[in-house]
Amino acid sequence: MQNFVFRNPTEIVFGRGTIAEAGKRVPAQAPVLLLYGGGSIKRNGVYEQVKATLKNHRVVEFGGIEVNPLYETCLKAVDVVKTSQAGFILAAGGGSVLDAAKFIAAAARFAGPDSWEILRSHGVVIQSALPLGAVLTLPATGSESNGNAVISREATREKLALSSKHVFPVFSVLDPETTFSLPRKQVRNGIVDAFVHVMEQYMTYPAAAPLQDRFAESILQTLAEWGPTTLAEPNHYEARATFMWSATMALNTLIGCGVPQDWSTHMIGHELTAFYGLDHAETLAIVLPGLWKHQREPKKAKLEQYGQRVWNVSTADDAIARTEDFFHSLGMPTRFEAYHINPAEAAEKVRTRFAERKTVLGEHRDIGPDAVASILAAR
Amino acid sequence: MQNFVFRNPTEIVFGRGTIAEAGKRVPAQAPVLLLYGGGSIKRNGVYEQVKATLKNHRVVEFGGIEVNPLYETCLKAVDVVKTSQAGFILAAGGGSVLDAAKFIAAAARFAGPDSWEILRSHGVVIQSALPLGAVLTLPATGSESNGNAVISREATREKLALSSKHVFPVFSVLDPETTFSLPRKQVRNGIVDAFVHVMEQYMTYPAAAPLQDRFAESILQTLAEWGPTTLAEPNHYEARATFMWSATMALNTLIGCGVPQDWSTHMIGHELTAFYGLDHAETLAIVLPGLWKHQREPKKAKLEQYGQRVWNVSTADDAIARTEDFFHSLGMPTRFEAYHINPAEAAEKVRTRFAERKTVLGEHRDIGPDAVASILAAR
Repeated sequence: MQNFVFRNPTEIVFGRGTIAEAGKRVPAQAPVLLLYGGGSIKRNGVYEQVKATLKNHRVVEFGGIEVNPLYETCLKAVDVVKTSQAGFILAAGGGSVLDAAKFIAAAARFAGPDSWEILRSHGVVIQSALPLGAVLTLPATGSESNGNAVISREATREKLALSSKHVFPVFSVLDPETTFSLPRKQVRNGIVDAFVHVMEQYMTYPAAAPLQDRFAESILQTLAEWGPTTLAEPNHYEARATFMWSATMALNTLIGCGVPQDWSTHMIGHELTAFYGLDHAETLAIVLPGLWKHQREPKKAKLEQYGQRVWNVSTADDAIARTEDFFHSLGMPTRFEAYHINPAEAAEKVRTRFAERKTVLGEHRDIGPDAVASILAAR
Repeated sequence: MQNFVFRNPTEIVFGRGTIAEAGKRVPAQAPVLLLYGGGSIKRNGVYEQVKATLKNHRVVEFGGIEVNPLYETCLKAVDVVKTSQAGFILAAGGGSVLDAAKFIAAAARFAGPDSWEILRSHGVVIQSALPLGAVLTLPATGSESNGNAVISREATREKLALSSKHVFPVFSVLDPETTFSLPRKQVRNGIVDAFVHVMEQYMTYPAAAPLQDRFAESILQTLAEWGPTTLAEPNHYEARATFMWSATMALNTLIGCGVPQDWSTHMIGHELTAFYGLDHAETLAIVLPGLWKHQREPKKAKLEQYGQRVWNVSTADDAIARTEDFFHSLGMPTRFEAYHINPAEAAEKVRTRFAERKTVLGEHRDIGPDAVASILAAR
């Protein structure tokens, strides 16, 4: 087990009818910036519940955060924070809205001349941030209980991640009933996203961390067992609650304590979203099995352990095959073909970008641009 | 899954050589009360490491906290806090020292006329507490990452628990190497204590919380797999690290989120410690199998699930038997006989006390004084 430091101060308020709990956790002295996305919260009743819990607060609204939140849009929200002198951001939505809230919270307090530096430094330059809270409506990213965010820049087709202890939500309200009206595709994406988050912290090499392994396998088993019901029965409270809690636990940084991590799949996937506009989870489902086939030998011991404990199969190849089967069972493609994208072309685009940036990925830091191209060309 | 609120703000600093990290987390403005127990930290090198990390702080020491920390002793430490105007408590030791630190931290800021009210109210009256940190040397109680403490009153042979969000440690340093010199009996006790902490939050009835179940089973499996090596090889870093992290996860309140809890075994066990001076874990190992036999029917579904997933047996009776076998394999007795205590007499003493207090236990709140007596008489 590696040495580690773990702290996650976010208060989770979980269950039916809990949006009403949000208002009492938001300071009343200054206006609140209520941040949301394309307006689905106005159709599913969440907006009314949030407004009701903030009835004693001054509220400034900012809607229209994109699915892959744009730097350019966030800067407009920063202006609204400054002109309204908002003292708190309440993000109502999925990971995109939460990620945007984190960047806005940091940028509103950033002293430097160019907020892009926050992302270029991956959050290292963040010294403080406006406090923020969340009402989560889409389980997937774990953003409700971590200090991470991913922001895209339209002008340059870049997608960069930040991480900072200053942008953990003070609280996050998780009411599984808010997910009942989600489109099937978003639920599918969320299950795959959570599943791959676990894998990035688990599928490396044995590191004498048996409890962390079992926690990771617990989330994988739970998503595997409950994923189909979660998709098939939108109003199944227990399935949705289990999905929601699993997605939070997948990336609240607990299971990654003391173990090596990979994150290649995410880094490659971000480029595919930037170039082709694929959903984040769609990119993960393409890349993960390809990465594993390429890294079958260095990852063999963990692939076998995973196969045995989660799917009751004994070989690494079977573990990979069962994972692809699982994604397919959720209606999630695992090949470029489904999107009419030429694998060789995608491989070349990502190779070029990674070569420019001198990107090297993987838990052994040995997956360079050529290896990435080889992984993608085979999908 | 039940609604829940979860927040655990304690920063965990885990690994080799991490005691040196403590000092930079302790405010330097006011003196620090360094709290410890019977002096084992002076024999195993921990005291020197703690003093070194506090070399730029003014330090006031208070040693001699008992294994079952006494209210009377804690009050003396409160006086030291007040006369020294200490602004922080650093507890170096096991759960006893940490528990004492929590009570002292609350009592130092308590406005009422009688600090016993803190315990009589089980912590409800706590409005604030002195900040505290910990250097943990004995994995067992989880006190390093929760807001719970148990304090005994010598004069009345009472043992009462408090719980408050105000007494979570700000940070806890967990260096597995500090456990290398622990007496075998304390390690045995710690493994059983952690195991039973999980059971109090798990062995109830199915509550549609599959991820919580699997997390609990993960800790049980890990303790079962690694317990024997942990005991047999004191300098096995990975075993001790796994034991230490398992004990923290067993009672940092995470696995209890959204599920019914029992805690009968602890409540009954506390009385046995109060009457007979048995170690806390010794009482748990006597009570748990007896409670399960008495509650075999209401707990049947979970006993079977536990048996299948942790021990690969199919019946509730086999699950109970395997648990007793596991305790015995650690050298832990599960009957009063080992301590020359008459079961009927113990049963009668606890029955009388619970009847006086109108105590009713269990996840269904249906285990009254007569049921407790029946459980104990059969041990």
